[in-house]
Amino acid sequence: MSLTVVGSIAFDAVKTPFGERPKMLGGSAVHFALAASFFDTVRVVGPVGEDFGDAELAVLEGRSVETADIERVAGGQTFFWSGVYGWDLNERETLATELNVFAEFEPKLSEQSRDCDVLFLANIQPELQRQVRDQCRRARFVALDSMNLWIEVAKQSLEAAIADVDCLILNDAELRQLTEQPNLVRAAERILEMGPSVVVAKQGEYGSALITADGFFSLPAFPLADVCDPTGAGDTFAGGFVGYIAAHPDVAISHDLLRRAMAYGTALASFNVQEFGTERVARLTAAEITERVAQLGRITQFVDVPLTLRD
Amino acid sequence: MSLTVVGSIAFDAVKTPFGERPKMLGGSAVHFALAASFFDTVRVVGPVGEDFGDAELAVLEGRSVETADIERVAGGQTFFWSGVYGWDLNERETLATELNVFAEFEPKLSEQSRDCDVLFLANIQPELQRQVRDQCRRARFVALDSMNLWIEVAKQSLEAAIADVDCLILNDAELRQLTEQPNLVRAAERILEMGPSVVVAKQGEYGSALITADGFFSLPAFPLADVCDPTGAGDTFAGGFVGYIAAHPDVAISHDLLRRAMAYGTALASFNVQEFGTERVARLTAAEITERVAQLGRITQFVDVPLTLRD
Repeated sequence: MSLTVVGSIAFDAVKTPFGERPKMLGGSAVHFALAASFFDTVRVVGPVGEDFGDAELAVLEGRSVETADIERVAGGQTFFWSGVYGWDLNERETLATELNVFAEFEPKLSEQSRDCDVLFLANIQPELQRQVRDQCRRARFVALDSMNLWIEVAKQSLEAAIADVDCLILNDAELRQLTEQPNLVRAAERILEMGPSVVVAKQGEYGSALITADGFFSLPAFPLADVCDPTGAGDTFAGGFVGYIAAHPDVAISHDLLRRAMAYGTALASFNVQEFGTERVARLTAAEITERVAQLGRITQFVDVPLTLRD
Repeated sequence: MSLTVVGSIAFDAVKTPFGERPKMLGGSAVHFALAASFFDTVRVVGPVGEDFGDAELAVLEGRSVETADIERVAGGQTFFWSGVYGWDLNERETLATELNVFAEFEPKLSEQSRDCDVLFLANIQPELQRQVRDQCRRARFVALDSMNLWIEVAKQSLEAAIADVDCLILNDAELRQLTEQPNLVRAAERILEMGPSVVVAKQGEYGSALITADGFFSLPAFPLADVCDPTGAGDTFAGGFVGYIAAHPDVAISHDLLRRAMAYGTALASFNVQEFGTERVARLTAAEITERVAQLGRITQFVDVPLTLRD
């Protein structure tokens, strides 16, 4: 079985209170692929420029990510994003977004990428997400991420893209913005009416929530005393979440399976934020993930004991 | 055994997207007491004005709250707060805070109130909290809440008050502000160094986190499709949390006990926000609380299944 992801492959310039990186490997498809690589064969689809070198490819290949569908555009420059984070890392300012090779990108998937079992449409133009979705009709589970920009400038196309996937993964504020529902539960219900059967609300440092017709589930972020750089945390979460589902091709996508997938996504994301960009996840081990999922279980469980209350 | 709370007894004027109340019963001690009344005998200490009538007392007495230490100040006006909430209820603007009878308040506790087993110092001037704390030296568990205002105008007094209690319950942003630590885990560690052995970070719609020397625990807020008025949610949470501890006089205050206390606080708070002010909690039943705690358990649990990851 295999997992295909289309999304940005980028250079990021990031400044946080804990340091800065003027040019590091990033992009939604990259963060996703590294996380998902612990679960399944991952194929990345997307364009890069001539400035994208062997060192960057080596990070992906070091995690056995399939890079044959990464298209190097002659004369082009790789997608570039630059941002600065505030003191508690909850606010960030985007300084620059240069689409570069993404402006003219027309996704052409290899037979292997088209034949994926699971597909993730990471945050890029909804039109591109729809083109890729159309080429992967055999996938049994398709998830999609997006952002406020596309809600603002391409809402109809985004809604059409969402209607054609199984799972929407979005920041909670964006779920509210997209559905014009101030209440998260109602916002998720609107999404379930649009087509998807699974909604995941990303809540930044607070964790994430899962909403399906079978109910609600919530997990906090893993508590860390040192958070260095949140860039890519949401895509890394998605990589763990979607990857976990891809790792279970013969298992029905039940609420229990989705809950466990949330735990793996949360664990992966927590490693991502501990260092800049892909630095921590690139050298992560399976044992570290397993241990963190177990810790996450311990910090979220309580056992009620019958108590007679005063009526 | 009994629980004493000192804090504001107020009239609130509140406007949310779902309606408004020009003058309703409120105040930190009131919300706390109604919630805690499900667990123990609760005594409220605080002043009210001549405008505080039998109808307001009846709400407290309807939940068997002891009101003998509510001091009616001749010629005085009850504490008044007025605020407006934004469309998703996560932001609110305070329109007016009138201390009125609280400006001259000197807490004089009855012997019964002083002899409490558990004490809650709800959000009022830190000097008043310290005066009450000094009168209740036999309490085995003392918790304190505060707000950004006191961090800004009375930080030294607040720090002295915190140093003399077992538990600090504070919004996460205020924990960061108080300790000047952008990271919540580090902020809580600073508080543990100041004296308290228990820190609870309130996180609004996201729930709450518990930090002690024994570890970290986190619970989401109970998901609701209809939230009407968040006023008093934090105090209602504290009432459930501290009340649960008060209900266990012969049990060591372990991490497991505190986790369960968090669940009861979360359940109580979720009822509070469903209607304006004290309206919902005033007619709440024990069975409803028990059922919601059980639901909370179900939406926060995941069971990991061993999985071989790809290293």
